[in-house]
Amino acid sequence: MSSSSNKLEEVTIATQPIFTGKVISLQVDTVQLPNGKTSTREIVKHPGAVAVLAIKDGRMLLVDQYRQAMGRTELEIPAGKLEAGEDPLDAAKRELEEETGYRPRSIRRLHSFYTSPGFADEIIHLYVTEDLEEGQYAPDEDEFLHNIEVTLDEAWDLIANGRISDAKTIMAVQAWQLYHLTGKFGYDNE
Amino acid sequence: MSSSSNKLEEVTIATQPIFTGKVISLQVDTVQLPNGKTSTREIVKHPGAVAVLAIKDGRMLLVDQYRQAMGRTELEIPAGKLEAGEDPLDAAKRELEEETGYRPRSIRRLHSFYTSPGFADEIIHLYVTEDLEEGQYAPDEDEFLHNIEVTLDEAWDLIANGRISDAKTIMAVQAWQLYHLTGKFGYDNE
Repeated sequence: MSSSSNKLEEVTIATQPIFTGKVISLQVDTVQLPNGKTSTREIVKHPGAVAVLAIKDGRMLLVDQYRQAMGRTELEIPAGKLEAGEDPLDAAKRELEEETGYRPRSIRRLHSFYTSPGFADEIIHLYVTEDLEEGQYAPDEDEFLHNIEVTLDEAWDLIANGRISDAKTIMAVQAWQLYHLTGKFGYDNE
Repeated sequence: MSSSSNKLEEVTIATQPIFTGKVISLQVDTVQLPNGKTSTREIVKHPGAVAVLAIKDGRMLLVDQYRQAMGRTELEIPAGKLEAGEDPLDAAKRELEEETGYRPRSIRRLHSFYTSPGFADEIIHLYVTEDLEEGQYAPDEDEFLHNIEVTLDEAWDLIANGRISDAKTIMAVQAWQLYHLTGKFGYDNE
């Protein structure tokens, strides 16, 4: 393995704001490429998000919700945007309890990842907990959810039939299976 | 497991185009919520993309490239946008050869996933191949890449230190480890 990053960098020459919305904003950056030419990069700015692989009595907690970008409902692990200045760990506990009614007694971060590095700066911080107690179900006012709990085999079937079809949830199912097989979630090398 | 999707659907009332760029476009949809109220959804439209877990002599092929959204370079599996009307399978073969110089003699789809269903319709079609021959290295004119090959253990180290930090690449590493452990990539139940 060898890796050198010289002569790959782009230099930002200008930033044109296009749109500022409730969730995202959009800007077009003009950049100088390594060969000296210029190009543009369309960049979506996002506050970041958290997601939680929550396992209760051998079943993972999933949330069914409508996704306008898909034009249909989808089953996902509990997740939500970071509020301004919010610590990701606090956000993970908050979103899990709001969306499922379960409060984690302990929880830890697996890792953080970019969802679409080609056009967006969104980072999702992925957490895992197997230690839950009853809490307060309190979805946001414009959030309409159904909660279900599935086994690992059922989760794979839901991936196969497309009811689970987003990156963070598939990644969580893979991590859960790696945990079954190795006793580790894969990326926690502690 | 039970799942019912009634009373979760949102109905699109209006669509306001905001921006049309080289890669993405942006629109704001006004929707009627299940409770009869209205809200808005900011939606990024994307042509879709392909990505390839390519394994050669026990090492996965990675591409180091600058990501303006991150402000740094990152190691990712070979990937790229679908061209207009292009079949994802053809795109996967094309992108792999252009970015690595290796042509797949055989290749198959693992699954397809949404990267950010909360605000974008981008779908990535993820392929896998272990059967490569020499082809023609030909990155796009504004693409500046370094190619490296890593073992599974090295890939996990790169996740741990953040040099691999995007969803599709972490998902590919997990799939590769599941293949080592079970003989299956996880989601191909054939």
